Amino acid sequence: MSQQGRPYLAIPGPSVIPERVLNAMHVPSPDIYKGELHEITRSLIPDLQHIAQTEAKVAIYIANGHGAWEAAIANTLSPGDHVLVLATGRFAFGWGEIAQHLGVNITTLDFGKSKGIDLEAVEEVLTSEGSEKFKAILVAHTDTSTSIKTNLRQLRDCIDTTQHPALLFADCIASLGTDCFKMDEWGVDLMISACQKGLMTPPGLSFVWFNKKAEQARLQKQIVSSYWDWLPRTNVKRYYQYFCGTAPTHHIYGLRTALDMMIKENNLESIWQKHLNLSSAIWAAFECWSEFGNIELNIKEQSLRSNAVTAASISKGGAKKLQDWCEKNSDLTLGIGLGMADQEDIKIHDFFRIGHMGHINTTMVLGVISTIDVALKALNIPHGQNALDAASKKLSISFKE
Amino acid sequence: MSQQGRPYLAIPGPSVIPERVLNAMHVPSPDIYKGELHEITRSLIPDLQHIAQTEAKVAIYIANGHGAWEAAIANTLSPGDHVLVLATGRFAFGWGEIAQHLGVNITTLDFGKSKGIDLEAVEEVLTSEGSEKFKAILVAHTDTSTSIKTNLRQLRDCIDTTQHPALLFADCIASLGTDCFKMDEWGVDLMISACQKGLMTPPGLSFVWFNKKAEQARLQKQIVSSYWDWLPRTNVKRYYQYFCGTAPTHHIYGLRTALDMMIKENNLESIWQKHLNLSSAIWAAFECWSEFGNIELNIKEQSLRSNAVTAASISKGGAKKLQDWCEKNSDLTLGIGLGMADQEDIKIHDFFRIGHMGHINTTMVLGVISTIDVALKALNIPHGQNALDAASKKLSISFKE
Amino acid sequence: MSQQGRPYLAIPGPSVIPERVLNAMHVPSPDIYKGELHEITRSLIPDLQHIAQTEAKVAIYIANGHGAWEAAIANTLSPGDHVLVLATGRFAFGWGEIAQHLGVNITTLDFGKSKGIDLEAVEEVLTSEGSEKFKAILVAHTDTSTSIKTNLRQLRDCIDTTQHPALLFADCIASLGTDCFKMDEWGVDLMISACQKGLMTPPGLSFVWFNKKAEQARLQKQIVSSYWDWLPRTNVKRYYQYFCGTAPTHHIYGLRTALDMMIKENNLESIWQKHLNLSSAIWAAFECWSEFGNIELNIKEQSLRSNAVTAASISKGGAKKLQDWCEKNSDLTLGIGLGMADQEDIKIHDFFRIGHMGHINTTMVLGVISTIDVALKALNIPHGQNALDAASKKLSISFKE
Amino acid sequence: MSQQGRPYLAIPGPSVIPERVLNAMHVPSPDIYKGELHEITRSLIPDLQHIAQTEAKVAIYIANGHGAWEAAIANTLSPGDHVLVLATGRFAFGWGEIAQHLGVNITTLDFGKSKGIDLEAVEEVLTSEGSEKFKAILVAHTDTSTSIKTNLRQLRDCIDTTQHPALLFADCIASLGTDCFKMDEWGVDLMISACQKGLMTPPGLSFVWFNKKAEQARLQKQIVSSYWDWLPRTNVKRYYQYFCGTAPTHHIYGLRTALDMMIKENNLESIWQKHLNLSSAIWAAFECWSEFGNIELNIKEQSLRSNAVTAASISKGGAKKLQDWCEKNSDLTLGIGLGMADQEDIKIHDFFRIGHMGHINTTMVLGVISTIDVALKALNIPHGQNALDAASKKLSISFKE
Repeated sequence: MSQQGRPYLAIPGPSVIPERVLNAMHVPSPDIYKGELHEITRSLIPDLQHIAQTEAKVAIYIANGHGAWEAAIANTLSPGDHVLVLATGRFAFGWGEIAQHLGVNITTLDFGKSKGIDLEAVEEVLTSEGSEKFKAILVAHTDTSTSIKTNLRQLRDCIDTTQHPALLFADCIASLGTDCFKMDEWGVDLMISACQKGLMTPPGLSFVWFNKKAEQARLQKQIVSSYWDWLPRTNVKRYYQYFCGTAPTHHIYGLRTALDMMIKENNLESIWQKHLNLSSAIWAAFECWSEFGNIELNIKEQSLRSNAVTAASISKGGAKKLQDWCEKNSDLTLGIGLGMADQEDIKIHDFFRIGHMGHINTTMVLGVISTIDVALKALNIPHGQNALDAASKKLSISFKE
Repeated sequence: MSQQGRPYLAIPGPSVIPERVLNAMHVPSPDIYKGELHEITRSLIPDLQHIAQTEAKVAIYIANGHGAWEAAIANTLSPGDHVLVLATGRFAFGWGEIAQHLGVNITTLDFGKSKGIDLEAVEEVLTSEGSEKFKAILVAHTDTSTSIKTNLRQLRDCIDTTQHPALLFADCIASLGTDCFKMDEWGVDLMISACQKGLMTPPGLSFVWFNKKAEQARLQKQIVSSYWDWLPRTNVKRYYQYFCGTAPTHHIYGLRTALDMMIKENNLESIWQKHLNLSSAIWAAFECWSEFGNIELNIKEQSLRSNAVTAASISKGGAKKLQDWCEKNSDLTLGIGLGMADQEDIKIHDFFRIGHMGHINTTMVLGVISTIDVALKALNIPHGQNALDAASKKLSISFKE
Repeated sequence: MSQQGRPYLAIPGPSVIPERVLNAMHVPSPDIYKGELHEITRSLIPDLQHIAQTEAKVAIYIANGHGAWEAAIANTLSPGDHVLVLATGRFAFGWGEIAQHLGVNITTLDFGKSKGIDLEAVEEVLTSEGSEKFKAILVAHTDTSTSIKTNLRQLRDCIDTTQHPALLFADCIASLGTDCFKMDEWGVDLMISACQKGLMTPPGLSFVWFNKKAEQARLQKQIVSSYWDWLPRTNVKRYYQYFCGTAPTHHIYGLRTALDMMIKENNLESIWQKHLNLSSAIWAAFECWSEFGNIELNIKEQSLRSNAVTAASISKGGAKKLQDWCEKNSDLTLGIGLGMADQEDIKIHDFFRIGHMGHINTTMVLGVISTIDVALKALNIPHGQNALDAASKKLSISFKE
Repeated sequence: MSQQGRPYLAIPGPSVIPERVLNAMHVPSPDIYKGELHEITRSLIPDLQHIAQTEAKVAIYIANGHGAWEAAIANTLSPGDHVLVLATGRFAFGWGEIAQHLGVNITTLDFGKSKGIDLEAVEEVLTSEGSEKFKAILVAHTDTSTSIKTNLRQLRDCIDTTQHPALLFADCIASLGTDCFKMDEWGVDLMISACQKGLMTPPGLSFVWFNKKAEQARLQKQIVSSYWDWLPRTNVKRYYQYFCGTAPTHHIYGLRTALDMMIKENNLESIWQKHLNLSSAIWAAFECWSEFGNIELNIKEQSLRSNAVTAASISKGGAKKLQDWCEKNSDLTLGIGLGMADQEDIKIHDFFRIGHMGHINTTMVLGVISTIDVALKALNIPHGQNALDAASKKLSISFKE
């Protein structure tokens, strides 16, 4: 049975780009020396601050998230410095590696792939002998590989308890514009993100927000590479300084439209609530499915679950079969498992992820769950029943509230 | 809870336009005097014949479906002629009116809004005294208002039994490219359709297919208005004759892409099967919902149900509440009821329709059903349970076959 | 030498479609039962009236210009009626033929292909015996084939002088939004146009404006075919009456944007002036070129020249060589000659036309002229010198005024 | 006089983006884990090598040209290293600064703004005492600010004469795909460019090509920052290594289309020839204009002129007046002068530039020149006559060759 309907990319980023964003990018090259492009670029800054709930400065980079990782380190740390990496999945390790390649020493606390950060362990490290060497603590708000969400408020409290002066750096690539995030209120000193997930814009831009404490670290450095140096980018005298050279003209138009949709036509609170509600429906379905057979959500503890992505497994290669079926039979692309299959007895084909960030709604998300349900049945993969009704019930309740 | 995901227009036409079709139309004006546009226009003809499973000629009009209705009559009938209209909903009446405005006398057999054509009644009329006056019989293959599908093969057999020479005219606006249709095999003499439903192109083009018997009727006419005359359009010596003037340049590119998707990248058999399977899932959901409360499918008899559109009702204004909820809470637009509420005791707000034609797949259609299920619960509209699981089961079986 | 720059279609329609208009059409199907589409459709009417400088009603058709021709006749005349056709090129003949196919008798005054209407001849006909039979006079404001512009104000005065009651019907397909046109002030009773020229929208819509006198002719008719009947289209109770069926959704968005550009962001006076100035530059170039060799403007008398299109000739097939060269070497498509080569001793390859309507400016129009100048030199076609400087000088003066 | 035609951005980058490239980018997010995106990405590499006429490896960065500058230095040089910068305009200084910010010491030979490199001076430096410290020589092939083109073949010969082992690094941001460039034949060791000029794609991608000698420099470095390190990007085992993280999905589609246009539908030789011919026409016009008054081409020596950009001046603020006029009156944006006005007696409003790179043709370029000619006349800026005819003549000759 051929399908040939609207394709749906339900991977954890790039997310579904709104047609209005693509339309906004379908324009002739603008003048880069004056006029509309300059005004629009300036207008992005307060909105990016609002999205992060912060008064911190924000630098925009033509780069992907890895570039923002590098920019964060390059501006604040020097070769020989030490950072503490709190790993809840593959991406914290990735950020750590980037720090290492800039000559920074890393100490990594690995909390595994499904349990979240153990604050007591953090406290222990921060109060142990020699801990004063840590200039920064690196953590992913949501780790896209495991779908673990870290409670940054609690982490900050934990750090404060120890009176350790380290800067808190958060990677919100997967979570920004999806999960609730309040940079200032939560005491995050530096945050990085990118445009292709909750911000609904094709990949190509990433961002570093930094508060005064983080800026202080920059000011103590003699030299920072021109491309990553956030000082000119956030103290712009001539327009080209925003981007250290030619502006990303078309992305600027796209991002402007995406931010308009989020801030002018909607609001952050309701966006966060939407993602929570839709995530809850997904979890409700998984809880039914996993009652029988070998389907499992990666994160058992609900408070640790991201509202942007859900990692799960079906043993004996079931995850791969599911993905293949959905793509072949309903134009639906699910995310592959990432960084989960490093133990010998666990196969890569057992993991998959659902991206549910950004430009989504009930119809889309329940469409994804429904397709999975059809696939499980069509593939004879053992699973618990009534998942769709459970999801519908769960969601209907959130609409009544 | 705000949603702000991908909007979904699930009305019975215009249907969801594939992004590739819109892209194909996003081009500068082409030369209309030679080259690519001419080749593409020519290439549409055999594909339009294939879509209708016919060797009949086809004329393309810059017009909507009402234009094709008028063209059909204008080419074959003259003021004072008589036609028999078999009505299974509002649209057959509409075609009849258009015939009347061209001076043709109509006799209408009204089969109501949910029962389909009574072949015995047709036979009776065609064999009654004076029946030889009928030059043509007008019928909608799928009437978009009631979602009744007429079995044209049986209708033709019925006509043949009576040895009545009337031409059989079918309106396949809603059904073409959705429900199985075989013009030649079924003995349909003239068929009209339009581009904005199963053919997945923005409204603006309509079509008349006519076989030799229908062409004979044209040749007996002395004069036909230039715009509707299908002779120059199907015996093209100069390119402008295809469209009696300036060509619909951008629609030609759009339709070409839509036909490529249907014929080159897919095939009619599997498209028909897809629509049947997805329709069956919708019906399965409705059968559950209607077990409790006042939700009803308009058509009880399954063989009469269209695979393109489903009409249903929820009493006490429930249909209107449902539509409003879906639009407000999940960017989903359901079709309003059309032509159903003419009896005093039936309210217009009790009817709705789901369009499921063209660019659809499992994820989309189950997304629609799921949203309705959430809405029923959120609105406290009484309904039978487990509709989504029933739909999923039904669909999974069709994938196994 | 390959070029591969931006293609330029300089034919007399379809004209260059602004990228903003194409963008406005690159949208998902809208709801056709309520909301934005309805509001936008309504908003088109006063703007279309403004463009024609009239308080007359206007009906919008999904059709090309030939459709509007037919609609004009169908609403006002009946089989057996008589009209007088004043022909200054192929298109008046075309309109006449369409009237004939509706059963109307035509009397044609042919003023040839380069001289314009002889008002004395018109007066003579209108005052001759039997002239009272003429119910309408058909004329093209600008005939696209010859590029003759008719002075409608003078024509109306001439008719008035004779006290003949015939309705004056004008075809402004090529001229609307390009040449100055004032329907009410000039006493035009019915005017037709289409969207793909001065209105800068892909072909697919055409329009009939009719004043009270013309409406009176409609009201005297018992019956008009549903698709062409302008009464429901201009007395809309239900939205579908605007278009006698499904609305041309995407064209509505395109036309809305084009009208915004013309009326909100610009104004008619300056648009008319622009076209006059740019046309004058084209004529200045031709006057230089034609000083030597066999290049000729079709219209010698400047007051007869259209500001939308320029017809010209180069003998011995020079026109065809020029067109081929421009297309091959600079992505520039010039218009072919149309309806000029019917005499034995004149060859079709001797004629060409330049379209200069709608979305044009100095850079574009002088780019066209410059390319022709290069081509004449490269092809060794004899021609007078300094054409480009003459055009530049001419244009610079209009900017100083 | 309002214009409102097609806007033309004739600045030296971003250049005019072909509508086909924008269309190719108007697509839903693709799967980044397999399939089409992977194949297309792989296919870019040989085509990028072909464009640079090289077998050198090429790394693609999500970054602008400044990013590629930084990547080039970061991969090959270390803090404390020395490079020789040969400056023919602002951009070589810019590259030098970026090297400095990476801790590299620079020695700059400034050849002024209109004369080009003095090879004897280079030879002298390279053979002077201490010259062995230079690990690399940095030069812009075309400096976009001055429009000086450097003969890299001669520069390489000069270096070879001195037997100096320094690597030759060329910045071809403005010239690639415009001016003839042959990396291998000319002995360039490392070249950087970006996508928004000759490669006709919206800004957002830049490139570093490096031959084995340059790669050797990389291999001698212990550590390179992850984002700039070209080793994983050019020895890809997993797809994400191409871009050190998320791929620039939409730019990949755009660049693929642009390269198809350049290589499949055209060829480099004819593209270079086109730019030379069109540039020659521009120069011919300037040579006329400058015969009277104060209009001056920045580069007198023709062999030093870029085929991508032309810098010129009109004293007493004439340049600014010209730019303003063109933008206001013909939707034409000329480039501002850059880096020319640092002497006290020279005003910034005296300089302007014309970009003529990438998606251009005769109609476009002569349209630009013509508009300037009209503006000079309308503004009463003194200028020599017959510039347009000179340009046309010049160009017609190149078509005959």
